[in-house]
Amino acid sequence: MDKLIVTPISCTDRVVTILDQTRLPAEIVYLEMKTVEDVYEAIKELKVRGAPAIGIAGAYGLFIIARNSSAESIEDLIIEIKLSGDYLISSRPTAVNLEWAIRRIINKIDHFVYEGENISIDSLRDFILSEAQLIHREDEETCFKIGELGATLFDGIDNILTHCNAGSIATSKFGTALSPIYYLHERGRKIHIFADETRPLLQGARLTAWELMEAGIMVTLITDSMAGFVMANKGIGAVIVGADRIAANGDVANKIGTYGVAVLAKEHGIPFYVAAPFSTFDLTIEDGSGIPIEERPGDEIAVIGGRRFAPIGVDVYNPAFDVTPNKYITAIITEKGIIKPPFNENIIKLLKS
Amino acid sequence: MDKLIVTPISCTDRVVTILDQTRLPAEIVYLEMKTVEDVYEAIKELKVRGAPAIGIAGAYGLFIIARNSSAESIEDLIIEIKLSGDYLISSRPTAVNLEWAIRRIINKIDHFVYEGENISIDSLRDFILSEAQLIHREDEETCFKIGELGATLFDGIDNILTHCNAGSIATSKFGTALSPIYYLHERGRKIHIFADETRPLLQGARLTAWELMEAGIMVTLITDSMAGFVMANKGIGAVIVGADRIAANGDVANKIGTYGVAVLAKEHGIPFYVAAPFSTFDLTIEDGSGIPIEERPGDEIAVIGGRRFAPIGVDVYNPAFDVTPNKYITAIITEKGIIKPPFNENIIKLLKS
Repeated sequence: MDKLIVTPISCTDRVVTILDQTRLPAEIVYLEMKTVEDVYEAIKELKVRGAPAIGIAGAYGLFIIARNSSAESIEDLIIEIKLSGDYLISSRPTAVNLEWAIRRIINKIDHFVYEGENISIDSLRDFILSEAQLIHREDEETCFKIGELGATLFDGIDNILTHCNAGSIATSKFGTALSPIYYLHERGRKIHIFADETRPLLQGARLTAWELMEAGIMVTLITDSMAGFVMANKGIGAVIVGADRIAANGDVANKIGTYGVAVLAKEHGIPFYVAAPFSTFDLTIEDGSGIPIEERPGDEIAVIGGRRFAPIGVDVYNPAFDVTPNKYITAIITEKGIIKPPFNENIIKLLKS
Repeated sequence: MDKLIVTPISCTDRVVTILDQTRLPAEIVYLEMKTVEDVYEAIKELKVRGAPAIGIAGAYGLFIIARNSSAESIEDLIIEIKLSGDYLISSRPTAVNLEWAIRRIINKIDHFVYEGENISIDSLRDFILSEAQLIHREDEETCFKIGELGATLFDGIDNILTHCNAGSIATSKFGTALSPIYYLHERGRKIHIFADETRPLLQGARLTAWELMEAGIMVTLITDSMAGFVMANKGIGAVIVGADRIAANGDVANKIGTYGVAVLAKEHGIPFYVAAPFSTFDLTIEDGSGIPIEERPGDEIAVIGGRRFAPIGVDVYNPAFDVTPNKYITAIITEKGIIKPPFNENIIKLLKS
């Protein structure tokens, strides 16, 4: 069987399906999204995850709202879309891409309607579908470009460590952190990935290991605590991770544990790369101290796979993200170019270019 | 109910019991060791764990061999003890304390028999029991001394991070890394411990959190990957860990992940302390590169609590220990004194003092 890059969301003949990532790797199940509640639940329960994939799911969610609506006027349909859009955004309030994708389409709907004459409800539905597909396609192009540009950084580097999952199933295709890996793999390079399991939710063990194996890329699973030992002993040539949000100075918020890996990389003289679409930058935030950190329930740590390991009643601290200060980052790979320090200047420069 | 320091091994009226640590924290079960096979299995299956506790269990194992023996002469009994002692040692070949405790008693048996006249089998049995109890008591005194000396390092430090379990249940009582904590707690100091869960076997979540809660000490459980974020944000004043083996230059082999914590501590300007009995030093080993690292089965990582999280067939790397180079270590706390850099000189100096 051919090894293929896995894609997590598809829309064919107005039917939207998503890969249920909560059931990986034991079961490969694609769920048809029939209602906006399906999309809300898929995002809230992390069936679809990864900033770009959540944005794409949200965009298709708007199309599903329009498709299912029984509104009899354009005005009523738009009101319904806006209300249900807010509902969708509330499924994961810290997911910047979700709000971004939904607001982008709603803004375009306003323009479309304002400028059009005699617009039918059906043409508005088609418009929303095409806008969602555009967001989907743009993300695929963005990820591909990140891979193509990022690949130039890995000459002579065979062993790469990654944390969490910023792979194909977190995006439309190719991923962000894993995109340069897929790009090189498809061109015949042998790359060996060491994947941190990424506690508490084990995205590395469940998702990164799975999608790399599906694509035929050599992957070795380790616990998060082994990253330092592996850097010291396994010839790791680079670390690459994704990002949830990047401040104007290049400080990066990403899955908890990223910061520790970055410090270890610096200590071992190993380049530490962040790969993210330009939309991940939040230039209203000066530095990492301004990025809010979501705290999640303690039982995500105390209980694994339904079994409680820690004592009942133990105090647990469970921040979902951490902030890696820019001084630990060798370069940020975006679809517009590779940004190197000083990040303060070079992020703005690339934005204006 | 009074909060108490838990002890993992006891010997009363010639009955040896151990706390089954594989069932913690869900069940608190003390197992009576009836045969040498019981002791072998308890050590091999990590029911008893922690270098000092394994040594004590091995010592009592020799007593159980002698107690159960049907040998009719001293010579036959000694042959049986030596053979069964080798069998016990093979339960965990990398556990230095196990071999040390067993060889110490066997050497003493040889002297006892050589010097004695008309020694009875019963008196030899009593001798072995008293030697095992001596090892037990010495360890308790050693741990207490580590606590008393180590406590002097924590003036004004309220938040302390630890990795794995080097607590009371890894020793006779008090523990090594946790001994200064118990010492301070019993004298009224409020200490707050952040415990790394310590993948893959979750000793932090299962054992450290449990024994600290049993003793009434405030503990917060985190994943290993949170150590850096917690150091940066929670006012951690010190890190303290145990050791499995320490080379002549002060390089420390300890539970996988210790090295990463040490690097992070240095980066945050936080003192990093290792607490270990002097017997943990292996002066035949010049530096950490000479310490063999046990690799354990991949399914310890891929499968948690009977449930497989990683894909079937995934490659897994599972080193059980790592080596922390001496440059990351602020001080090594032993029962003979606190050793500070330069370790090369000061370890020898303390040994000769």
